[in-house]
Amino acid sequence: MENLDIRLDSDDLLGQQLYGELRRLILSRKLKPGKRLPPSRALADMLKISRSTVTETYEQLLTEGYLESRGRNGTFVSPDIPKTQSPVRTTKSASPAGKTIARAKLTTYAQYVSSSSVFDRDSTDFASAFFPWRPAFDEFPQEEWARTVGRYARKYELPLLDYPVDPLGSLVLREAITAYLERSRHIRCQPDQIIIVDGFQQALDLVFRVHVRPGDQLIVENPGYAWIRYAAEAHQAKIVPVSVDDQGLETARLAQLAESSIKLACVSPSHQYPTGALLPLPRRLELLEWARQNGTIIVEDEHDSEFRYDGHTIPALKSLDDHDNVIHIGTFARVLFPGLSAGYMIVSEHTAPLFARIKRLSSEQLPSFVQCALADFIEQGSLERHIWRMQEVYAARREALLRALKRFFGKRATVYGEEAGLHVMVRFETRLSSKEILERANKQGIGLIATEDCYLVKPQKAEFILGYGGLKDSEIREGIRRLADIIK
Amino acid sequence: MENLDIRLDSDDLLGQQLYGELRRLILSRKLKPGKRLPPSRALADMLKISRSTVTETYEQLLTEGYLESRGRNGTFVSPDIPKTQSPVRTTKSASPAGKTIARAKLTTYAQYVSSSSVFDRDSTDFASAFFPWRPAFDEFPQEEWARTVGRYARKYELPLLDYPVDPLGSLVLREAITAYLERSRHIRCQPDQIIIVDGFQQALDLVFRVHVRPGDQLIVENPGYAWIRYAAEAHQAKIVPVSVDDQGLETARLAQLAESSIKLACVSPSHQYPTGALLPLPRRLELLEWARQNGTIIVEDEHDSEFRYDGHTIPALKSLDDHDNVIHIGTFARVLFPGLSAGYMIVSEHTAPLFARIKRLSSEQLPSFVQCALADFIEQGSLERHIWRMQEVYAARREALLRALKRFFGKRATVYGEEAGLHVMVRFETRLSSKEILERANKQGIGLIATEDCYLVKPQKAEFILGYGGLKDSEIREGIRRLADIIK
Repeated sequence: MENLDIRLDSDDLLGQQLYGELRRLILSRKLKPGKRLPPSRALADMLKISRSTVTETYEQLLTEGYLESRGRNGTFVSPDIPKTQSPVRTTKSASPAGKTIARAKLTTYAQYVSSSSVFDRDSTDFASAFFPWRPAFDEFPQEEWARTVGRYARKYELPLLDYPVDPLGSLVLREAITAYLERSRHIRCQPDQIIIVDGFQQALDLVFRVHVRPGDQLIVENPGYAWIRYAAEAHQAKIVPVSVDDQGLETARLAQLAESSIKLACVSPSHQYPTGALLPLPRRLELLEWARQNGTIIVEDEHDSEFRYDGHTIPALKSLDDHDNVIHIGTFARVLFPGLSAGYMIVSEHTAPLFARIKRLSSEQLPSFVQCALADFIEQGSLERHIWRMQEVYAARREALLRALKRFFGKRATVYGEEAGLHVMVRFETRLSSKEILERANKQGIGLIATEDCYLVKPQKAEFILGYGGLKDSEIREGIRRLADIIK
Repeated sequence: MENLDIRLDSDDLLGQQLYGELRRLILSRKLKPGKRLPPSRALADMLKISRSTVTETYEQLLTEGYLESRGRNGTFVSPDIPKTQSPVRTTKSASPAGKTIARAKLTTYAQYVSSSSVFDRDSTDFASAFFPWRPAFDEFPQEEWARTVGRYARKYELPLLDYPVDPLGSLVLREAITAYLERSRHIRCQPDQIIIVDGFQQALDLVFRVHVRPGDQLIVENPGYAWIRYAAEAHQAKIVPVSVDDQGLETARLAQLAESSIKLACVSPSHQYPTGALLPLPRRLELLEWARQNGTIIVEDEHDSEFRYDGHTIPALKSLDDHDNVIHIGTFARVLFPGLSAGYMIVSEHTAPLFARIKRLSSEQLPSFVQCALADFIEQGSLERHIWRMQEVYAARREALLRALKRFFGKRATVYGEEAGLHVMVRFETRLSSKEILERANKQGIGLIATEDCYLVKPQKAEFILGYGGLKDSEIREGIRRLADIIK
């Protein structure tokens, strides 16, 4: 015991420190198997700690098998500690950057993700952040929402506390969404066709897991939402870009693709991302007819089509789908708030049980009390009251943005897709590259998104997505004014 | 207009009904392209509804492109409605079971899930449900939890409302978990090695997505948790069962496997599922040394090891892992409640960024306000106070179960794994099959789980997992008494 190298460095949690030190000595064979340990009182005296700390530590190490007791003869290091060739970590610091797992070969999926840097987002925030995903946080009826959540967090009911019985999601929420979608998006479906997800990417991932085999062809809009492409590429799909004009997807081009078998087409018909175009009815019907004839599945991405400024809401593509070709994906990120992580997808009655099984095999759900609170919020009409009210708020913010663009840029800015949603697309007349504009804007406290990543082919220069949902009128004006100083 | 076949069936939402009917007539070509519609007043009179309902409906159909206005000449069906060969759905009922998507070929993953019935769980509940996953809901400090959740649901802060900036999960929660795991499981890691997940299956799924390629070999315990095997098989892994005795995984058998390259080994060392065995230290060290030498990744499943009844908590296998071979997975399902859907995994610092990217590509997160509430709950000490208190509650329930088994079965029941967790495994001496016992027990209002699914090879007859966490002493006694009547 004389040379027991035990270091205790504070009064805090002495037992745990002693435990760690003794284990280190045993594993590194500085205390050899069969070696007798000092009696607890002697060690306590030596280390100037209480005897009970030592006896409790010994007991713990006895229970775990590091030590064994031989009654009156004392406490010994277990004889059957196997000899290890691996060095033992002796400090309290974190593990060294291990290489073992790095060497283990990755899946094709992981290799793709590993090799691309598009997944590392910058998390800097800005004074004027024209981020298209941000709703007006300041207008959200948060107190009402918090009261509803609190009520369900407080409820002592088995379905709220136990594992959810239904992998599709809480029935009350699926029923509330079914009714809401019929009212607001003209979609007729059954609650058993709805799957509650935590957001768009999870819904997309489920679709790909079910339908997309390596090499399968998949249509994306060009330009389009880049994360659809990333997910598709990770799933080893073959990407077929179809171009978008001011009326959305150029459905006339689909006929040329009739020969090749397209498994899936991802579209955003009600407010195309990023152009903001609205797919007119004839194109919608053409797309559906083409999909039906080719057995193609259409994934409809609805991210902000609840808000329209020149008439009524446009029904979802899904509402025209008489042949179960459309999988509809929507979220509450824009109409409530993104941090809620709540969304839904509508699949055919036929495939819903398969989606349910895969959901259960690969993830749990949004906490049950949150699902039930959301259902309540929808059923009480709070969601739609909020949307109606926001319609006006966003119309004003959109006006402020359009006015500011006109005033500070005049003809040097062309605006697209201003009829709906929470963003417009703007192309600036300038010799600066998108990257230069971004860098200068960020320095000035202006956050914006270039469309470059949205293009698989022929990216446009100096083209940006400007979201106005999360900014007040004055912030919008000031942001655009400063942007005009940058883009001369 | 004479024979316009418009049916409106109630006073409710007349506008939407009229809209639906007109659209149906246009798409089915009963109203042909170019055809003039009746003036709004005439149609209103004919249908005995208000004129504004008709004008609003016309406007909506104009916006969507079904109709076009020719000024004073009236309103006409658009001439460019494409001819569709597909029949139009004419009723308000849900879509017919479509065959289009069913015909589309499924992925290998989906084919596996589709072909197996193990994924359809029965959701029946029982008076005495000996379900191993159920903690004592009646003892959970729900009011304190609800207050904490309410506080964060009410907080007006960007990080709580916007998309989470960090795909690993909220930093405050990862820090709280890091400190908690060091205190309770002796694990030393950095917050950046922790990924917040919604449960065990999601964590496992992430591991498989990163590491398991088709044909890769993967060790599972036999018997073991069946859903690990299901997920592995869906990922086309080759399953290598390694048997379990009363000391857990038989690590001596690993040496025989040294020649073949094993990618991954899934183990539950601290309270093996279903046997409840505790892997002793020499086997833990042997397992780690073997993994290090073979470059095998160990997945440590910790489902209920916080609770022990014969000494201190046993540190996690991860706490002995000096070479980043262990991926540790834990959840709050047992220590708080399953409906919370909160868990965590610890990966190496080296692979954490890759896991983060894949997490972002394939799902969102637990709602931010729930993550922050959970962090607060841990930091305030509420989690550990609850665990300490439950230690006694569960010790008493366990006693009640063991006493009842002894009293009503005597030597006809052999109990395994009673030292820890929230369940024991019991083998009954009987001529009845597990299935017969289950059926009779369920009829008597007793829910229990047979171990049969846990075995890949050589399942045991009349062997059951009996969870006692969610039952009061009296319910336990009464359930076992009735079970004894069944198993004669």
